[in-house]
Amino acid sequence: RLLALMEPMHSADIADLLEQINPFDRGRLIRLYDQEFDGEILSDLDENIREEVMAALRPETLAEAVRDMESDDVVDLVEDLDAPQQEAILEVLEDADRVAVEQALSYPEFSAGRLMQRETVMAPEHWTVGDAIDYMRDAEELPEQFYHVILVDPRMRPVANVTLGKIMGAPRTVPLKNIAEEMFQIIPVTQDEGDVAYAFNQYHLITAPVVDENERLVGVITIDDAMEVLDEEHEEDILRLAGVGEESSLSDRVVETTRQRLPWLAVNLVTAILASLVIAQFEATIAQYVALAVLMPIVASMGGNAGTQSLTVAVRALATKDLTSANVWRVIRREVLVGLINGVVFALVMGVVGIIWFGSPMLGVVIAVAMVVNLVVAGLAGTGIPVLLEKIGVDPALASGAFVTTVTDVVGFFAFLALAGAILL
Amino acid sequence: RLLALMEPMHSADIADLLEQINPFDRGRLIRLYDQEFDGEILSDLDENIREEVMAALRPETLAEAVRDMESDDVVDLVEDLDAPQQEAILEVLEDADRVAVEQALSYPEFSAGRLMQRETVMAPEHWTVGDAIDYMRDAEELPEQFYHVILVDPRMRPVANVTLGKIMGAPRTVPLKNIAEEMFQIIPVTQDEGDVAYAFNQYHLITAPVVDENERLVGVITIDDAMEVLDEEHEEDILRLAGVGEESSLSDRVVETTRQRLPWLAVNLVTAILASLVIAQFEATIAQYVALAVLMPIVASMGGNAGTQSLTVAVRALATKDLTSANVWRVIRREVLVGLINGVVFALVMGVVGIIWFGSPMLGVVIAVAMVVNLVVAGLAGTGIPVLLEKIGVDPALASGAFVTTVTDVVGFFAFLALAGAILL
Ligand SMILES: [Mg+2]
Ligand SMILES: [Mg+2]
Ligand SMILES: [Mg+2]
Ligand SMILES: [Mg+2]
Ligand SMILES: [Mg+2]
Ligand SMILES: [Mg+2]
Ligand SMILES: [Mg+2]
Ligand SMILES: [Mg+2]
Ligand SMILES: [Mg+2]
Ligand SMILES: [Mg+2]
Ligand SMILES: [Mg+2]
Ligand SMILES: [Mg+2]
Ligand SMILES: [Mg+2]
Repeated sequence: RLLALMEPMHSADIADLLEQINPFDRGRLIRLYDQEFDGEILSDLDENIREEVMAALRPETLAEAVRDMESDDVVDLVEDLDAPQQEAILEVLEDADRVAVEQALSYPEFSAGRLMQRETVMAPEHWTVGDAIDYMRDAEELPEQFYHVILVDPRMRPVANVTLGKIMGAPRTVPLKNIAEEMFQIIPVTQDEGDVAYAFNQYHLITAPVVDENERLVGVITIDDAMEVLDEEHEEDILRLAGVGEESSLSDRVVETTRQRLPWLAVNLVTAILASLVIAQFEATIAQYVALAVLMPIVASMGGNAGTQSLTVAVRALATKDLTSANVWRVIRREVLVGLINGVVFALVMGVVGIIWFGSPMLGVVIAVAMVVNLVVAGLAGTGIPVLLEKIGVDPALASGAFVTTVTDVVGFFAFLALAGAILL
Repeated sequence: RLLALMEPMHSADIADLLEQINPFDRGRLIRLYDQEFDGEILSDLDENIREEVMAALRPETLAEAVRDMESDDVVDLVEDLDAPQQEAILEVLEDADRVAVEQALSYPEFSAGRLMQRETVMAPEHWTVGDAIDYMRDAEELPEQFYHVILVDPRMRPVANVTLGKIMGAPRTVPLKNIAEEMFQIIPVTQDEGDVAYAFNQYHLITAPVVDENERLVGVITIDDAMEVLDEEHEEDILRLAGVGEESSLSDRVVETTRQRLPWLAVNLVTAILASLVIAQFEATIAQYVALAVLMPIVASMGGNAGTQSLTVAVRALATKDLTSANVWRVIRREVLVGLINGVVFALVMGVVGIIWFGSPMLGVVIAVAMVVNLVVAGLAGTGIPVLLEKIGVDPALASGAFVTTVTDVVGFFAFLALAGAILL
């Protein structure tokens, strides 16, 4: 009955199901489902759950599942395992597959070499459509996934991509060269997977040949794998921006989650204490004029929000390579001006609020000026800090937030309290 | 010389170049480059810049460029134009293309119908490999992009997908049905593009047939367009989380940018004033004990950060459909426990800081207890609020931030100051 229920489900949905139920049910489900366990489920599973599931499967089932998988998916599966576990998996593979996987593992983590499949369909550059069709028809085994024939020169360097659709539509005598795609991107085997995903999205690629340091064809990357990387890079950015470990997953346990979140909260504590030290300089002022304590978080909070707006735009634009040295000064100028205008608007609002609430025009002036200063600084820091971090090779998504809010907190409290001390007392 | 320089550039890179230079240079470049303007550059351009560029092109060049484009890219180009501009573009198209574009425009915005190309390659379900090859060889025109032959039943309902690679590799006599892909996803023409992108990523699709309300084949979506949507959805989420209009772009002018950012800052101002109203209730307490004013932002800030961590994880998990009714209680429980543990850790730290800094053990106790309370509330609100918003049909990326930080600010200040009032005075 269970099998009948799960039969029509896609492996990715079964993987989601396994991720979302609790560990006890998961164990039971796997034991029941053990005979028919599809390798694709494993590759669709979240890495956290994957090891647990692999441990729960009978060794024969696991071996069967792994043998069914494509080599690039096996790489993804084994790359995070300990050496002994990795070997156990590699052992069950056929020789050719094992060599392919071991080769891929020899490339750096997060590189094109880990992402590509070794199976390619290539043809000499002088072949005609007829040659290619005869070759493919006669080939003992074609890759599971391929959408292009890659033309290579005698030294195995890819020179063009021909889509299967064009081959299907052309007369047999047409040279492949004549129907090759106009634009053509080659991916170095050591290129970072994030840049690979960017290239696929930027150039609308479906597959791209991967070459080694001698520019020889060693594999091909297909867009489905690039899309997955794009999705992971986004996840990384969004989680890093929030100060959450990018490895975090919904299925992490409490202890693991706590360990991931704690460092960023600790960083925030340090910056909050820094802000408090600024406030402490003005204890005497606050003691004389308690309204300051009531209003000061507003200035800091508005600065923090405006800074986060600027920094998120900058981080995203850096990720999409839209923010470059060609336009960085224009963008910074824009952000500062936006901060100035918004600063003036909210300065007026808060000035009025200050006057009405506390009946003090001077207090209104103080909070208004502090607001303008802090929003301008927010625009400047929110753009400048991510750009600087990118320049020195730190992921701007990772560290910008802490720096920017430190700046806006410190500047906000200082501008407001110092001005108040000078003007009101 | 300019043409020689730009010739080898990909249209997407030319588009980026046009986006990044200033408007004056952009105008000059377009005038110089006018003769050879490729339609693909237009579709790769950011929407903001696109209208400007289209206005700068000579009408003949624009017409030429648009005629070169594929119909789904024309749809993307014209859907945001005013009616008269739209008509001007549609007029230059060939009749068949114009009908295709108008048909696509009749589907709702952000639907699969807008994303698909009308050009498909289909075959009756009883055909063999040989039939399909002969048909394609004889076809007058095949779509620019196609990777599958879609098998349809007599009522034009898609029943299976056969990849061109499999057709290439199989003997002519094999029925197409026998080499069709095992799993097969059909997309309703009104499906939201975000769900389309999700399906492509989840099920590793390369192309998917699109059907109308009668389940008849009306078009096909290719993964490159789905990948672009995935990227846009991510951008939307990340910008909305930061309170930046998701339509915002790096090339927006100052006024436009200010207008986009202002509403979210206004929302933040309201929540900040709310927090200030809480503080105002305790003016008397603060007046007696100014150290409270120094320390209170720490509690609020830690809560805000912890809440943002939880809410970002929740928003992302909702977007990837990993957070469902099956595991929502487990996740909420986890987030609350994580808040509790981190709360206790930072309570101890701040307790000690309070004692050392201000020499008051009771102040240490107050800040410690307030910290625990606020971090637990942050975990609860950070997960609960996005889940609730999703349930009532509001994008959790859009509104969660304001709610969560309001909660953590109010609870943070209240817990800290009320406790201080009760214990210290
Ligand atoms: Mg999943
Ligand atoms: Mg995969
Ligand atoms: Mg991996
Ligand atoms: Mg990466
Ligand atoms: Mg693959
Ligand atoms: Mg990144
Ligand atoms: Mg671009
Ligand atoms: Mg694009
Ligand atoms: Mg497009
Ligand atoms: Mg559009
Ligand atoms: Mg959308
Ligand atoms: Mg397309
Ligand atoms: Mg969304």
